[in-house]
Amino acid sequence: MARPDLRPHLVIVGGGFGGLYAARALAGRPVRVTLLDRRNHHLFQPLLYQVATAVLNPSDIAVPLRSILRGASNVTVFLANVERVDLAGRRVVLDRGEIAYDVLILAAGASHSYFGHDDWELLAPGLKTLEDALEIRRRVLLAYEAAERERDGAEQEALLTFVVVGGGPTGVELAGALGEISRQTITRDFRLIDPSRARIVLVEGAPRILTAFPESLSRAARDALQRIGVEVRTGVTVTRVTTDAVWLGGEQIRARTVLWAAGVAAAPLARTLGTPLDRSGRVLVEPDLSIPGHPEAFAIGDVCACLHQTGAPLPGVAPVAIQQGRAVADNVLRRVGGQPTRPFRYRDQGSMATIGRAAAVAVVGRFKLSGLVAWLAWLLVHIMFLIGFRNRLLVLFEWAWAYVTWHRGARLITGPWRGRGSGDASGQGL
Amino acid sequence: MARPDLRPHLVIVGGGFGGLYAARALAGRPVRVTLLDRRNHHLFQPLLYQVATAVLNPSDIAVPLRSILRGASNVTVFLANVERVDLAGRRVVLDRGEIAYDVLILAAGASHSYFGHDDWELLAPGLKTLEDALEIRRRVLLAYEAAERERDGAEQEALLTFVVVGGGPTGVELAGALGEISRQTITRDFRLIDPSRARIVLVEGAPRILTAFPESLSRAARDALQRIGVEVRTGVTVTRVTTDAVWLGGEQIRARTVLWAAGVAAAPLARTLGTPLDRSGRVLVEPDLSIPGHPEAFAIGDVCACLHQTGAPLPGVAPVAIQQGRAVADNVLRRVGGQPTRPFRYRDQGSMATIGRAAAVAVVGRFKLSGLVAWLAWLLVHIMFLIGFRNRLLVLFEWAWAYVTWHRGARLITGPWRGRGSGDASGQGL
Repeated sequence: MARPDLRPHLVIVGGGFGGLYAARALAGRPVRVTLLDRRNHHLFQPLLYQVATAVLNPSDIAVPLRSILRGASNVTVFLANVERVDLAGRRVVLDRGEIAYDVLILAAGASHSYFGHDDWELLAPGLKTLEDALEIRRRVLLAYEAAERERDGAEQEALLTFVVVGGGPTGVELAGALGEISRQTITRDFRLIDPSRARIVLVEGAPRILTAFPESLSRAARDALQRIGVEVRTGVTVTRVTTDAVWLGGEQIRARTVLWAAGVAAAPLARTLGTPLDRSGRVLVEPDLSIPGHPEAFAIGDVCACLHQTGAPLPGVAPVAIQQGRAVADNVLRRVGGQPTRPFRYRDQGSMATIGRAAAVAVVGRFKLSGLVAWLAWLLVHIMFLIGFRNRLLVLFEWAWAYVTWHRGARLITGPWRGRGSGDASGQGL
Repeated sequence: MARPDLRPHLVIVGGGFGGLYAARALAGRPVRVTLLDRRNHHLFQPLLYQVATAVLNPSDIAVPLRSILRGASNVTVFLANVERVDLAGRRVVLDRGEIAYDVLILAAGASHSYFGHDDWELLAPGLKTLEDALEIRRRVLLAYEAAERERDGAEQEALLTFVVVGGGPTGVELAGALGEISRQTITRDFRLIDPSRARIVLVEGAPRILTAFPESLSRAARDALQRIGVEVRTGVTVTRVTTDAVWLGGEQIRARTVLWAAGVAAAPLARTLGTPLDRSGRVLVEPDLSIPGHPEAFAIGDVCACLHQTGAPLPGVAPVAIQQGRAVADNVLRRVGGQPTRPFRYRDQGSMATIGRAAAVAVVGRFKLSGLVAWLAWLLVHIMFLIGFRNRLLVLFEWAWAYVTWHRGARLITGPWRGRGSGDASGQGL
């Protein structure tokens, strides 16, 4: 790539919350920024489960990075696949070509971990990208379609059984939405099956779901899930997944649709650094978020293992990535200006998870909220937070419509027809 | 499939305009209806080009067939691939199983014809399904992304050249939208290329575009296209398509993105009937839309070759299919009731095509309209026509927003990264 000026060249890898907020914080500052991402869009991941469950459209929660950064004339966006980072040579190697940097911010994110069973990925898709969300939507809707055509009772039951693995916020949100779809959205759409008979099972290895929340809120979430028909199974782990069943130890659950919302594995790019990683493959960083031995390279967001000032590990959530993005931008400018960097300090603004219609749990400072109040708080925070005015309005409209009518507007199946609802993750999204 | 009652069993193949309007006309009538479609949704095809050009979301123009027919308790919808029709045995053979019928309505539609060059399909995708629209959107947006990264001048030019083959309404709409994208939507989004330098070529074999319209409107459309930077080439045919060029006889146009909007080929299912077809593979039908020799089987919409009462062939547009769907439902009820069927008569309500912002052409009775008036007429007709209240509101919002801001909200690229923008049609949609 041409390097026409003498400003330091900063390369940011990844346009998620961390990378994007770093780029925004550096707009108009005396650095030349190149933002690299495999996608052309920033994704508002906290609402991804709503695309997977047919409430929202992809473009409601995704905005082209170019649009967001249109006004930042010192930022260039390239759609590119970064294959490795050469820390010693200060360059990133792309699918085609390479780019030299003066300063690097690695914000490549993470995906789910299948705990050594990578072959389960095709059988039980996770939820990290728009394609994942559309694949999940396709599988769930196809399962009902296939059940309507199926005459074999046992097979019909397997088609109407949905297992969600992982009782964190994503798993809880997915299971809750699946419960609402079966009990409310599509009850009158079928002639030969009763969708409200569908079985939805949420599996969590720990003794309770939402382990990051206080115990009373875990209980509230469990109760709310059970009210909308979700079976909550805690203290059990998945030992085997096949095309038509999940094993919990000796117990077999026949299910055609299994969704994965457990574990964390940092982006494989982290392994190319050659610096120490944690068990999940995340980059261990200094308090100022730089990579040990490389003061010109930083790692932020889900790809890094960063400790809270109290010594506890920081969770892989958007607020952490955003704060790190801003902090690292500040540290980059300090380093460029010859000043010492500052350690990153996390300001905890609370955490929340939704279960379904008018049901959520939230911790804000000393307050523990559940039910309608928590849900309203969740709604407010997510609307305020969505990047882009247009999306905010549209999402509000979609939500209001879904709330009043129980409809889910984006209930479309696309991709090649294969006659059966599962066992193949190569499908096309929508 | 179980057959629990004695009402005649009507099978409709295809949930497009023809099949859906037939099913709706038969709701609550003394027949048992099974509607088969490969997709779970009805598609409002006249607006498909707006999904391809990133104005609308898939769910704005597609509604699940089950939702539309929810209240029609005598209609069962199956997601199924019909492999052949056995007219003698009165059954349709599916990907899995078969269904017997008393009466058949074949409404399987059509796709584009590559005039014997089926290998061009991968190089120059057509626009018939949501997947097609998303693939076209992906290719167009990826071409700009690849051009931003490309340092070779000739290759950059090929990436910024878009060829649309076929000067009918779809081709004109696509070319117009591509012109607006390059000249307005993304002009400020790139740092290294100037999107408004993009070359958009519309190719038509006939001496003028929009041949179904009066000559004065063809001229108006051509002028409007040229005003937004589209090169209109008439009287030339495409003789060769490769991954990076299109040949018009001896002339080569280097282009990475070629879109196909020419020709008509009826659904391959028509060939399994064993009855006479026309050159485009369409089923020749009797005046009452029944298949010759099979008074219990009908064909409607794009899959049939039907003549206007004046003897002229009917165009493959939504109003024809809708009127045929209603007429065939009436004829089915007449046959069930022992009455003679009636010949189909088409009531021409006019035709229209848009070129871009505030530019369209329309023929309504004796009136020829162009410019803003035609565009407003187009807007009104399409909004009124969209099935489903929710979609109508949302589409209106998207359009108003796009009109005021020039933004295109659905500007997302999804699917696997391949580093280059073309030459492979296996991509995933969004």
